[in-house]
Amino acid sequence: MSLIVMKFGGTSVATAEKIHRAARRAVQERLHGHQVVMVVSAMGKTTDELLALARAVSPSPPKRELDMLLTTGEQVSIALMAMAIHASGQEAISLTAGQLGLRTDSVHTRARIQSIDRQRLEQELASGKVVIVAGFQGIDQAGEITTLGRGASDTTAAALAAVLGAGACEIYTDVDGVYTADPRIVPDARKIDTISYDEMLELASAGAGVMHGRAIEFGMRFGVPIHVRSSLTDSPGTRIMTETQGMEAVSVRGVTLKEDLASIVVTDIQAGVGVPAQLFSEIGKKNIVVDDIVQANHSGGSKASLALLVPSEDADHARDVVEHLAGDLGIGSVEVFRNLSKVSAIGVGMRSHSGVAGTMFDALRHADIPIWGISTSEIVISCVLAEDDGPKGMRAVHDAFDLSSPDPTSADNTD
Amino acid sequence: MSLIVMKFGGTSVATAEKIHRAARRAVQERLHGHQVVMVVSAMGKTTDELLALARAVSPSPPKRELDMLLTTGEQVSIALMAMAIHASGQEAISLTAGQLGLRTDSVHTRARIQSIDRQRLEQELASGKVVIVAGFQGIDQAGEITTLGRGASDTTAAALAAVLGAGACEIYTDVDGVYTADPRIVPDARKIDTISYDEMLELASAGAGVMHGRAIEFGMRFGVPIHVRSSLTDSPGTRIMTETQGMEAVSVRGVTLKEDLASIVVTDIQAGVGVPAQLFSEIGKKNIVVDDIVQANHSGGSKASLALLVPSEDADHARDVVEHLAGDLGIGSVEVFRNLSKVSAIGVGMRSHSGVAGTMFDALRHADIPIWGISTSEIVISCVLAEDDGPKGMRAVHDAFDLSSPDPTSADNTD
Repeated sequence: MSLIVMKFGGTSVATAEKIHRAARRAVQERLHGHQVVMVVSAMGKTTDELLALARAVSPSPPKRELDMLLTTGEQVSIALMAMAIHASGQEAISLTAGQLGLRTDSVHTRARIQSIDRQRLEQELASGKVVIVAGFQGIDQAGEITTLGRGASDTTAAALAAVLGAGACEIYTDVDGVYTADPRIVPDARKIDTISYDEMLELASAGAGVMHGRAIEFGMRFGVPIHVRSSLTDSPGTRIMTETQGMEAVSVRGVTLKEDLASIVVTDIQAGVGVPAQLFSEIGKKNIVVDDIVQANHSGGSKASLALLVPSEDADHARDVVEHLAGDLGIGSVEVFRNLSKVSAIGVGMRSHSGVAGTMFDALRHADIPIWGISTSEIVISCVLAEDDGPKGMRAVHDAFDLSSPDPTSADNTD
Repeated sequence: MSLIVMKFGGTSVATAEKIHRAARRAVQERLHGHQVVMVVSAMGKTTDELLALARAVSPSPPKRELDMLLTTGEQVSIALMAMAIHASGQEAISLTAGQLGLRTDSVHTRARIQSIDRQRLEQELASGKVVIVAGFQGIDQAGEITTLGRGASDTTAAALAAVLGAGACEIYTDVDGVYTADPRIVPDARKIDTISYDEMLELASAGAGVMHGRAIEFGMRFGVPIHVRSSLTDSPGTRIMTETQGMEAVSVRGVTLKEDLASIVVTDIQAGVGVPAQLFSEIGKKNIVVDDIVQANHSGGSKASLALLVPSEDADHARDVVEHLAGDLGIGSVEVFRNLSKVSAIGVGMRSHSGVAGTMFDALRHADIPIWGISTSEIVISCVLAEDDGPKGMRAVHDAFDLSSPDPTSADNTD
């Protein structure tokens, strides 16, 4: 007998029928003798509807009250799920974060989990019940209701799996796994069978919207295997796990595209006097998220130029902040380039495969796509492209790494 | 400076605009220097919609999970109300029953309040905030979420007013007060200016749907004046208060009509051998609510006949229960009469006015309405009528007591 954590997203609990379908999966596992913890999100578009209600009442609602409002969505789902499981003859109990003892810090709308009390969970599981936990929500030391950020029901699931030492954390969703690229842009994208936590983290932060980044961090830190799969079929999805030797057989695991970006380029900065540090400190204070930073020194190392990639909507604001600092910091000129996108290739195999960057640049060159900027990290190579070139660039890179062919590390392939 | 508890029902918080209107009332009181506790219900038809969702998932949902589900409606309202008050520049904080410490027993869907922790409330009030409390909900000793029964946000408000020693408990609703009769049936019904707790309790239990009975009990027990008024206008509503001398100037305060009733009549019971007690014990076990009981002895006191008035939907079930006992208990025959209604006249003045019953029976006789049964208590006289005669009977009784004339005890009248 093992313990399974099963998480169902909003689309997988959007109707009474879908709730019953999810309930049947949990009951099935229970009948196979497993202990089952379910984590559920708010039904369908509930969270968006609640946000619309809030906006109708106030242009800038207090975050504490937003959390009070939004957490009702998951509370509805857990109650209905418990009813559905009861209706099938199995025992079940729903628990809010407060009842469970899922403690967070007090940062409303983006709180972080601090601890999870196992006592209530283990007691209910020991009595044979399916335990249904409200995702996305927490409670701080003072008993205030918090939320973990949009999409964070994944994080609730991974954290519960970690704390309970679950054998598996299954993330049920409306797609059948993680893909080598977004199939809406790259029609021959292929489902990935296995992927490392590192790769999945980079995929998520580079724009693949399948999973919440912090959920992957939890999985990685506590060694919880995560299985992203479809709530509609029984076919295997994508397993996110610790990196194995075999994984490096593939140099690139997937390709992502991030759109709607702008670049703030600052030239002729005095190098080495802490200018970048001051700049980022100011930008951080203004709550601007910087996607990528490239610094290149020139003029014998005395001068540098710096490029910040930011979401388009933050471009004007970011430029203002940078220009405001221009005089003090000896900045030469500030330019803004808009309508950019970023294509990234991600894979732990890059570490051992040489020439990955070259293959990517060649692919873009052959497709006649100019590169506006490049940034790399250990397992990611990103090229900034004109927005119009983004999808085409993504397809070219996907092709160049032969990602539509069957995964050589796949279990299906070794049969 | 005094403390005011203001309760807003579902229709008074049904839209963002109505929430703002309610918020303005609270802010106004706050600006006048009063401390304000608001109690709010779920928006509009939310509770019915949640119940429909539950029924779509399960024909017989566990009551614990029903409470988990239904309490989300009030949580949405308190969050939005807090946002609306913040938007107007005043400080506010929403509190769930759990956060407030409103403890109940563990009887899900109809829990009773056991205690209310004043600490958090008083702390937030002392800091100048408008405190917004979720009506209808409670929490038991184990931290389980409970509800107090449909319409029980009134009870939350009255209980808070009692515990905090509030100067007033204002119940805002979509009508402008309590009426001498339902104006949809008796067009010349008049708003009642003042009414005693006893009368209001009887009105509520005899079918006037304006207020939750237990709220009135709280008001009575702790001497909290309750003011039922319109959320749309500033005009005074109905004040529910301790009985005063002046109130007895009026023999009948109001007339109610309860429809959809059936009568189970048992004849030739052996009198005095505990048959009624056994009967009611069995009926109570089957969860049948008996509206009224009339017992009449005959045959020199050795035999009795008993009539039970029950909701139509319970009639078959109640008859089965009674017939099942027939053999053992020496019951002669069991008859069921359907399509009945009950008109009641209520007033503390009955105690000192003779001839009230006579006036009522005469009124019905002049209107050619046969009386199927009569029951009386200290301040209520009820006549069972054919359902078709109900509205006409109600109008006849309302006329007979001259209830459409201005209230002689009204303050408006003594000017």
